[in-house]
Amino acid sequence: MDCERWPYGDLAHLAHVELITPKPEESLWFFTEVMGMTVSGEEGDSVYLRGWDDYEFHTLKLTAGKAPALGHLAFRTKSLEALKRRVKALEASGLGEGWTEGDLGHGPAYRFRTPDGHLMEIYYETVWYTPTEATRPALKNQASRFPGRGANLRRLDHINILASDVGAVRTFLETYLGMKVTEQIVFSDGTEQGAWLTCNNKTYDVAITKDHLGAKGRLHHFTYAVDSREEVLRAADICLEHGVFIETGPHKHAIQQTFFLYVYEPGGCRFEIACPGARLLLAPDWKPIVWNEEERKRGQAWGLKTVETFHTYGVPPVEEA
Amino acid sequence: MDCERWPYGDLAHLAHVELITPKPEESLWFFTEVMGMTVSGEEGDSVYLRGWDDYEFHTLKLTAGKAPALGHLAFRTKSLEALKRRVKALEASGLGEGWTEGDLGHGPAYRFRTPDGHLMEIYYETVWYTPTEATRPALKNQASRFPGRGANLRRLDHINILASDVGAVRTFLETYLGMKVTEQIVFSDGTEQGAWLTCNNKTYDVAITKDHLGAKGRLHHFTYAVDSREEVLRAADICLEHGVFIETGPHKHAIQQTFFLYVYEPGGCRFEIACPGARLLLAPDWKPIVWNEEERKRGQAWGLKTVETFHTYGVPPVEEA
Amino acid sequence: MDCERWPYGDLAHLAHVELITPKPEESLWFFTEVMGMTVSGEEGDSVYLRGWDDYEFHTLKLTAGKAPALGHLAFRTKSLEALKRRVKALEASGLGEGWTEGDLGHGPAYRFRTPDGHLMEIYYETVWYTPTEATRPALKNQASRFPGRGANLRRLDHINILASDVGAVRTFLETYLGMKVTEQIVFSDGTEQGAWLTCNNKTYDVAITKDHLGAKGRLHHFTYAVDSREEVLRAADICLEHGVFIETGPHKHAIQQTFFLYVYEPGGCRFEIACPGARLLLAPDWKPIVWNEEERKRGQAWGLKTVETFHTYGVPPVEEA
Amino acid sequence: MDCERWPYGDLAHLAHVELITPKPEESLWFFTEVMGMTVSGEEGDSVYLRGWDDYEFHTLKLTAGKAPALGHLAFRTKSLEALKRRVKALEASGLGEGWTEGDLGHGPAYRFRTPDGHLMEIYYETVWYTPTEATRPALKNQASRFPGRGANLRRLDHINILASDVGAVRTFLETYLGMKVTEQIVFSDGTEQGAWLTCNNKTYDVAITKDHLGAKGRLHHFTYAVDSREEVLRAADICLEHGVFIETGPHKHAIQQTFFLYVYEPGGCRFEIACPGARLLLAPDWKPIVWNEEERKRGQAWGLKTVETFHTYGVPPVEEA
Repeated sequence: MDCERWPYGDLAHLAHVELITPKPEESLWFFTEVMGMTVSGEEGDSVYLRGWDDYEFHTLKLTAGKAPALGHLAFRTKSLEALKRRVKALEASGLGEGWTEGDLGHGPAYRFRTPDGHLMEIYYETVWYTPTEATRPALKNQASRFPGRGANLRRLDHINILASDVGAVRTFLETYLGMKVTEQIVFSDGTEQGAWLTCNNKTYDVAITKDHLGAKGRLHHFTYAVDSREEVLRAADICLEHGVFIETGPHKHAIQQTFFLYVYEPGGCRFEIACPGARLLLAPDWKPIVWNEEERKRGQAWGLKTVETFHTYGVPPVEEA
Repeated sequence: MDCERWPYGDLAHLAHVELITPKPEESLWFFTEVMGMTVSGEEGDSVYLRGWDDYEFHTLKLTAGKAPALGHLAFRTKSLEALKRRVKALEASGLGEGWTEGDLGHGPAYRFRTPDGHLMEIYYETVWYTPTEATRPALKNQASRFPGRGANLRRLDHINILASDVGAVRTFLETYLGMKVTEQIVFSDGTEQGAWLTCNNKTYDVAITKDHLGAKGRLHHFTYAVDSREEVLRAADICLEHGVFIETGPHKHAIQQTFFLYVYEPGGCRFEIACPGARLLLAPDWKPIVWNEEERKRGQAWGLKTVETFHTYGVPPVEEA
Repeated sequence: MDCERWPYGDLAHLAHVELITPKPEESLWFFTEVMGMTVSGEEGDSVYLRGWDDYEFHTLKLTAGKAPALGHLAFRTKSLEALKRRVKALEASGLGEGWTEGDLGHGPAYRFRTPDGHLMEIYYETVWYTPTEATRPALKNQASRFPGRGANLRRLDHINILASDVGAVRTFLETYLGMKVTEQIVFSDGTEQGAWLTCNNKTYDVAITKDHLGAKGRLHHFTYAVDSREEVLRAADICLEHGVFIETGPHKHAIQQTFFLYVYEPGGCRFEIACPGARLLLAPDWKPIVWNEEERKRGQAWGLKTVETFHTYGVPPVEEA
Repeated sequence: MDCERWPYGDLAHLAHVELITPKPEESLWFFTEVMGMTVSGEEGDSVYLRGWDDYEFHTLKLTAGKAPALGHLAFRTKSLEALKRRVKALEASGLGEGWTEGDLGHGPAYRFRTPDGHLMEIYYETVWYTPTEATRPALKNQASRFPGRGANLRRLDHINILASDVGAVRTFLETYLGMKVTEQIVFSDGTEQGAWLTCNNKTYDVAITKDHLGAKGRLHHFTYAVDSREEVLRAADICLEHGVFIETGPHKHAIQQTFFLYVYEPGGCRFEIACPGARLLLAPDWKPIVWNEEERKRGQAWGLKTVETFHTYGVPPVEEA
């Protein structure tokens, strides 16, 4: 059915990320004080956070745990019918895990795993963020007040998951979630090294990168967006002042042309502050851009060589063979 | 059917604008030299232009004529089936006008008018821009080379049409094209003064503004986007150097929060250079923001009073009663 | 002697401003929370503040008082000898008032008044700011940590004083302090409406504007600088969120081309956040740019009409005849 | 005498750089089309160029020659008397070479060499740039029209010369020209690796870097400034489009905190596009910041490792032992 696949598609957008952190207090400090996100709620071992223009109750769920890792990621569907259609497809995939009640931020969600083991969920019923006295915006077409604190992250942008088999995860997202590949890396030996997929007009909501350490189901990074490249530069200044480890950047990726800054949050997870600019995926017949090994060797957009850790580090950390 | 209405919707995006200009040479100079757009083709009295990251052959068709006016505007649909569905609906609307062969930039298009008389068309088959030696980009995921000339406009963003009856045109776009209202102005007496509609994740592709001079089918302005607010400020510097009339701005609208600069191109049409930032419409259940008369009186986002001409001037120009 | 007059000159730079405020707690909140300045000390009714890259102990002294007003402004001289030379000249001017012990932020200072009554002082011995644990910068060539709070004002930039007789005050600053006029407004009737003077390579440290209400010794505004125009725009967003009154801007002045935002701090004083860009006064033989009445009528750089209050409001406020 | 040494000092500013290029046409294309500079004159084998806000006739003299090299650099003095004082001092240094008639851009100049052999000159009488019809600015307090072409370089900023003995050249500039060191690199073994000197409120006009290949009198790079860091990023995009080699950046230096982009112009000379921000040297008693070997190893401000060529490449190129 038309509706099921992009450019229609049943998914609305990447909705939230749950990050497990072995240093919950420090991670919380990082996301609120350094990054400028705001706490919208707390429950058990989890703290719920959001960027100032995220419309939902939360886009980040920070949960205390033994090692840094992706707890789960979630997509919101376009409607209840869309949710039902996806659940039906996922049940047939053999990778479905069943329904949850949802949590502070949203209603019933159906959980499933990618072939590589990443835990995901989809839901429709959500909680729209209600500003408090302290977070009420001056302009009512804005989710909450511009905080004027730290990097002032605007909204969740995307997530990059590591996979032992990129093609398998990509196919899974295309087949069962109706996502579309916008850019890809394919090496000379034919191996798929990376894939970027979207379910809307953003050029990507999910990236899948080859896990060079052969592990399964790990997380490379997740990303929030700011409005300008100058704010990404300021985020670098702010991270430097706070002793946050800057892994690489600021610079511009050749792939997707995202202007990026990668840091490690205190729990150990790689986190990105990015500016997508006015770049959107509007063409319904967009053909994926495929980058080859030779092109990848040229480095980032303006020639920056990718640091080695970018190719190996992820969470949970694994020993290199 | 699900597919027909936003957030699915049959329309992909606002595709191009045809501007009639009584000063074709000067208008062309403005769009190419001052704004940094590039000519992709010419035919008869028309010149075809595009921003450096517009993927289609053209997004602006500049046609010589007696007075400045909107020639027509076009939407691209998501597929041939989507086109057929829309045509069927439009035929039933009574405002359909029939098929054209298309032109240099696209295939067969179905033309129709809004209740106020604005000429529009929808099509699916298009011509993707093929870079020449001079316009080939260094990065292959970019439609063409960053020109480094003038305001370096990136892509078409939206159009704002004047209407004697805003509600009628809005209803028409919602009903027959499946567009969705994201923001609106409704005065105390209940009159609809403005409506902003989208067919994708941009917060608006089309705005409809009340024609205070009571005319029908006029054009308020159309807009191209740049990546940063700094580039909007530079566009103001560039316009000043070239003697281009700056009507108002740079400033930020309260509605939609677009950072804007309004100028008059040599033919007399109001033209906007804008930065949308990272603001997107991702929520499938977005409720339109309604602004009232009191709120409008406060002026633009940071208090700038809207200049009088912004409320009256449009093309074609009409004598004020 | 060469040394006494610009481009040599005995003055190093505008050093600090003392602002009297009838709302000391609210003014303090404004400068620290909204503007991002930091408190370096307190004494009596005064709080000492600075921008993150001001090298001295303070650049703003906030003192509680009955009405908003300029307490005094200070220049630092280039050396003790320079200070002695200036004091000698000022003693001969008839407007000298004598020595003070200095205060928390600096050593002995010689006080004097302009012909219009503005209280000024000059000193050489100063207290360099010593960062605390909380304000230590990551990079040691920076005065203190980038705060990541509010508008993150970098440093004091200039002050604009109102005068009943602009020419008299200008002549005084040129003659006794060795300052140089860089730009001026002179109307058709020959009256001097404004003068901008520098003592270094900044294009101005002090501006003198005609007091249209005929009062003497009032203050128009004082200004802090940020690195980019984007940060001025963000400052506007931040002020809007905090309910700070935005009088005019952001926009670019024609005079000096400063990119500005004018707000009223809670005590009632007009305050400016500006970006000077990379514009400097390097030519030793710079001839003052003189703007006439006709040119002033064109408005600001991109055409913004100057709001009426900009021509009349100052502190202390006076009743308009 | 006070006047002779900073913060008074007889030098006004770095005035121009003569670059010898073995590819005069391509170098000219680079500076005009890619960098946005404008030609103000031509004479013999030389072309005279300037940034849009350079007040003098030229700031760059491009001369055809066998190999890329520094032809000479020039400082303008604050007055004729200042020029005479400096000449007298230089004559006594033993490194003076005598007077020239000046050239298209300026009057009589006194030439001399640094201990390492760099050819320099000082002059006072200059030619102020007179805008043509095509380069007349809209605002009269601007040297010429904002070109809206390429990187739109605003003005000359600084030069970095390589020296076999940094300390000797530094001492020479301090002693005979009255310049002041603002930052320095001194290694554990006591060797001076770099020195940054100013003669005004810019934090540096001249940098001296250790020539690791042991050569004498070479050039590391020279630099023009733009107003914002976003424009440095755009310059990177523009260089990429034009196939200009990007050596490193954009990034921020720890030393001086300049936001930089280094490219090689077609003749082979390293060229920098920089944003100094609002950072100025206002304190008359500024103490040089000394960076040690350990601090240098940390890389640039946000951790970027300095590329190897940055430590070895200069012009004229020499074979590495």
